[in-house]
Amino acid sequence: MVPGLAVVIVGGRKDSQSYVSMKRKACAEVGIKSFDIDLPEQVSEAELISKVHELNVMPDVHGILVQLPLPKHINEEKVLGEISLEKDVDGFHPLNIGKLAMKGRDPLFLPCTPKGCLELLKRSGVTIKGKRAVVVGRSNIVGLPVSLLLLKADATVTIVHSHTTDPESIVREADIVIAAAGQAMMIKGSWIKPGAAVIDVGTNAVDDSTKKSGYRLVGDVDFHEACKVAGCVTPVPGGVGPMTVAMLLRNTLDGAKRVIEL
Amino acid sequence: MVPGLAVVIVGGRKDSQSYVSMKRKACAEVGIKSFDIDLPEQVSEAELISKVHELNVMPDVHGILVQLPLPKHINEEKVLGEISLEKDVDGFHPLNIGKLAMKGRDPLFLPCTPKGCLELLKRSGVTIKGKRAVVVGRSNIVGLPVSLLLLKADATVTIVHSHTTDPESIVREADIVIAAAGQAMMIKGSWIKPGAAVIDVGTNAVDDSTKKSGYRLVGDVDFHEACKVAGCVTPVPGGVGPMTVAMLLRNTLDGAKRVIEL
Repeated sequence: MVPGLAVVIVGGRKDSQSYVSMKRKACAEVGIKSFDIDLPEQVSEAELISKVHELNVMPDVHGILVQLPLPKHINEEKVLGEISLEKDVDGFHPLNIGKLAMKGRDPLFLPCTPKGCLELLKRSGVTIKGKRAVVVGRSNIVGLPVSLLLLKADATVTIVHSHTTDPESIVREADIVIAAAGQAMMIKGSWIKPGAAVIDVGTNAVDDSTKKSGYRLVGDVDFHEACKVAGCVTPVPGGVGPMTVAMLLRNTLDGAKRVIEL
Repeated sequence: MVPGLAVVIVGGRKDSQSYVSMKRKACAEVGIKSFDIDLPEQVSEAELISKVHELNVMPDVHGILVQLPLPKHINEEKVLGEISLEKDVDGFHPLNIGKLAMKGRDPLFLPCTPKGCLELLKRSGVTIKGKRAVVVGRSNIVGLPVSLLLLKADATVTIVHSHTTDPESIVREADIVIAAAGQAMMIKGSWIKPGAAVIDVGTNAVDDSTKKSGYRLVGDVDFHEACKVAGCVTPVPGGVGPMTVAMLLRNTLDGAKRVIEL
């Protein structure tokens, strides 16, 4: 059996198209069959949902990914809720998040970026158990689930966000920092405890007249400064992004294996 | 229409019977019809589940509570998963917990004790937004959901647990402390920041030869010491317990209202 991943994209957003093409290319590299569903910007919510239902029952499809964000006339929550739990390789279904949060329960799929963050820590030999971890940002896609994963791995977790007073002093206590705020280079070298492990999930475009495109991508961490203080730090681009794609492939493979086992 | 709550108890555990009788008495006081289901210790999982199914379809029942813990031969997770989401007044279904965790989503019911903790803070005039909150304990029933609720209310939340190094210094930074570790009087006066709001969820029996029963109930906080430092602190018994029962009644009422609205 060949594992299959359906990648659904609606409309022509440049960033979404670039993410989707990376995911499809990665599938080809490892031998996962990718089903490419490209729908026009004007597609109705009902049409999109009926496409999801079609993919839900296709036996060759083991994972379904709907690239976000969707156009404004479509209710994301409703569409994501229609993806079969057994094929929810992004792990965003609230039932998956609930099981991720709860002790003694395991979701069918872990969300790809949070799973990739923990994989990066493990592969770098960073101990999580008993360590102070600070997560900057609390999005449903990264901040929240990565906090819950770190807690399950026995870290002492603090979640810092836009209403936090003095985030700097809190980040400075962390053995592990996960930066997922979407604020270009907000975390300076002076914020980082010497030797800390820093995972930078941010991807922000900043103006750069020396580039043909007129911009360059930077993380939520000032990488240059962080390198002088941290024990290890992931670059942007090139750190969390490729690991997220790898975890998507892994989830698809796990989905396919589960079908064989049943 | 009269709101109805089914309270299911299996076996003869003294503590469970005392909790159940408090809940039934509270129903009677406010005019909620309580359906008393008392099953023997030896009841099979299948029989218990079939009872739950029966209650799921009874139109007079708007909330179903299965008192925990269940006897060892019964799978709690399986039984709780059979309760209709619309009647899950304890709010323990993973789909409810997932929606509680996620930004922009709302569960049908909030778990009673965590909801009661926030109600106590609100009624005491304690600001949550932007404050440092430390939750001691990470159980599915209290620690985890109360952390998620505080985060949604814009506190900066840290979760402390058995693997945390130096919990004392972390608790001392908290403007709001939620003690839910199940460790008699582990939180001393010296752990508490002057003026902090302290909610004590613990209920621990300690030997006391001066009592007829041979024991007395104490919280996770050394109440006597805490009173000298904290801005406010809940007593055990008499603090969180009655508020939990009140929230159960509120959830039942909300469940009944939802039926009328639909």
